[in-house]
Amino acid sequence: MALYVMKFGGSSVGDVERMQRVAKRIIEKQDEGHQCVVVVSAMGDTTDDLIDQALMLNPNPSAREMDMLMTTGEQISVAMLSIAIQYQGRESVSFTGWQAGFETEAEHGRARIRNIRPERVLKALGAGQIVVVAGFQGITADGEITTFGRGGSDTTAVALAAAIQADVCEIYTDVDGIYSTDPRIVKCARKLKEISYDEMLELANLGAAVLHPRAVEYAKHNNVKLVVRSSFTYNEGTLVKEEATMEQGAVVSGIAYDKNVARITIRGVNDIPGVLAKMFSELATAKIDVDIIVQSGVMDGKADFSFTVNLEERERALQVIAAIRGELPYEEVTSETDLVKVSIVGAGMVSHPGVAAQMFEAISSQGVSIKMVSTSEIKVSCVIEAGRLNDVVTALHTAYGLDTEEQAFVGGPQDRR
Amino acid sequence: MALYVMKFGGSSVGDVERMQRVAKRIIEKQDEGHQCVVVVSAMGDTTDDLIDQALMLNPNPSAREMDMLMTTGEQISVAMLSIAIQYQGRESVSFTGWQAGFETEAEHGRARIRNIRPERVLKALGAGQIVVVAGFQGITADGEITTFGRGGSDTTAVALAAAIQADVCEIYTDVDGIYSTDPRIVKCARKLKEISYDEMLELANLGAAVLHPRAVEYAKHNNVKLVVRSSFTYNEGTLVKEEATMEQGAVVSGIAYDKNVARITIRGVNDIPGVLAKMFSELATAKIDVDIIVQSGVMDGKADFSFTVNLEERERALQVIAAIRGELPYEEVTSETDLVKVSIVGAGMVSHPGVAAQMFEAISSQGVSIKMVSTSEIKVSCVIEAGRLNDVVTALHTAYGLDTEEQAFVGGPQDRR
Repeated sequence: MALYVMKFGGSSVGDVERMQRVAKRIIEKQDEGHQCVVVVSAMGDTTDDLIDQALMLNPNPSAREMDMLMTTGEQISVAMLSIAIQYQGRESVSFTGWQAGFETEAEHGRARIRNIRPERVLKALGAGQIVVVAGFQGITADGEITTFGRGGSDTTAVALAAAIQADVCEIYTDVDGIYSTDPRIVKCARKLKEISYDEMLELANLGAAVLHPRAVEYAKHNNVKLVVRSSFTYNEGTLVKEEATMEQGAVVSGIAYDKNVARITIRGVNDIPGVLAKMFSELATAKIDVDIIVQSGVMDGKADFSFTVNLEERERALQVIAAIRGELPYEEVTSETDLVKVSIVGAGMVSHPGVAAQMFEAISSQGVSIKMVSTSEIKVSCVIEAGRLNDVVTALHTAYGLDTEEQAFVGGPQDRR
Repeated sequence: MALYVMKFGGSSVGDVERMQRVAKRIIEKQDEGHQCVVVVSAMGDTTDDLIDQALMLNPNPSAREMDMLMTTGEQISVAMLSIAIQYQGRESVSFTGWQAGFETEAEHGRARIRNIRPERVLKALGAGQIVVVAGFQGITADGEITTFGRGGSDTTAVALAAAIQADVCEIYTDVDGIYSTDPRIVKCARKLKEISYDEMLELANLGAAVLHPRAVEYAKHNNVKLVVRSSFTYNEGTLVKEEATMEQGAVVSGIAYDKNVARITIRGVNDIPGVLAKMFSELATAKIDVDIIVQSGVMDGKADFSFTVNLEERERALQVIAAIRGELPYEEVTSETDLVKVSIVGAGMVSHPGVAAQMFEAISSQGVSIKMVSTSEIKVSCVIEAGRLNDVVTALHTAYGLDTEEQAFVGGPQDRR
């Protein structure tokens, strides 16, 4: 007998039929002799609908009231799922975040978990019940309802798994695991059997939307065994754990990309000490996330540098740069869109020099020029022109020996039920 | 400065526009220098929609999970209303039932309030905030979410008014007060300035759906000053209080009717002691509400009697009667529908003999025969054929001097916005 935490996203419980299928799936797990704690998100578009309605009343609602409003979405889900489980003859009980013991900081809309007191969850499990817990929510010590922000239900599942010492935390989603790259681009993408927390974290941060980075961090920190799998098939899924077994000696585990990239270039900056620090602290104050930063060599006491921001922050970044021109003189500022960032991720990279060189070669073999490069211990990212994304990803996938003969499953509520 | 509890029903907050109108109404009250605690029901059809969805998953869901589900309706309302109030520049905070301190018995779906700890409500009021409280809900001492059953938001408003010693509890609804009778039948129905708790209780129990009987009882018991008024007009409303001033010496305050009536008649019952007790305890065990009971004289050791039940309980009542025939022999059982119960209500009746006789006279002057009669201290009810309802109500309204020259306002979301 093992103790499972099973997390189902909003699309897995989007309507009555899917809700029933999820209930069945949970009961099958119980029939195998296991204890089940289920975490669910709000059904389908519920949360977005609530937000839309609220914005019609007030374009700038308080975060506190938005938390009151949005947490109802998960409360509806857990009650519905519990009702569906009961229909199939099992005992089930649902809990809100506060009933499940989630205490958070007092930061509405993005609260961090401070403490979990899972007594009621454990008691219900002890009584043989299937426990259904609302994702994404908790309360402060003062009894104020809070939410965790995007991807919050993943965090609920992982944190609860840690608190009740679950054997496994399964994340059910609309793909059947973590792939070596986006199967919509590379048909022969490889589903990974295992991946390390760090690799998963890089992939998550690079836009592989399957798992929220915060949940991965939480899992790594608490050593929670994570499995990402499909709620629409019984395929095996991908295990995320501390040290993944290297598959067939693969140095690179996966290839990710991010289309949400704009580059800003500033030319002829006076190369005085602290100039970069000043520039980027201004951008940080304006809450603009800067990703890759590249500085070219200094010539005649002037330097050029470039950095990337999210597309939707390009305008604001340009405004910030313009506003500080008097203080930090420069000759010219330009910006560029139609870019994409392609990254290779692999824990094996650390011990294999030449991995980056191989990447540059594969990209240039496609006649594509590299505009920016950034490296970390287990990742290399290159910014290239957007139009050539598919060719580059395909070439990289082949170059690192990731191609398989099987066709990847790209599930989803619409195409596989 | 007075402390107001203002209760708005679901139709008053059914969409964005109405929500904004309610927010404006509350702010006007604050502008008059008053403190406001607002109680709201779920928006429009939210609760019914949630119930329908749950029944698609499970025709027999547990009451505990239904409470989890249904309480989200009011939580959405309070957050939305608070957001709407904030848009108009006022500070506002919403509370769920448990946050507002409502502790109840552990009876899901029909919990009674055990205790109210309104500290958070009072603290927010003290900080100058408009407080919006979710109606219809509380929690048990074990932290289980409960609901109060039909009309529960009225009860929330009245109980909270008692707990925080509010000066007035205003019930905003789609009519602008309590009328001497249904203005849809009698155009010149009189809106009452005042009515006593007991009269209101009789009217509520007789089918005047404006206020829930339980809320009226709670108000009477705690001496909460109630005002029933329209959320669509600024008309004055009706004050419900301990001793209403008799208007122009009117003995009868109102005329109510109830179409949900079936009569069951049992003939030739052996007149042995305890036979009635046995019969009605069987009906009570089957949770069938029996209203009027009439026994005719005994002849040859056999008695006839009739009683009324709700229309939808007629079939079950007949089954119960059939099942005990062996034990309690009778000659024949029949049932009758197409009936209506017409009642006159008035606190002044006690000291005015002849009120009932006047009623019988008015009815028979219409050529209508009275099938059953029941009396209490402040009420006389007659069962008549349904088809003559309007004639009888109109005749009674005139007979007791209730006609006015004004035309009654029958508001409602559709016809007056």
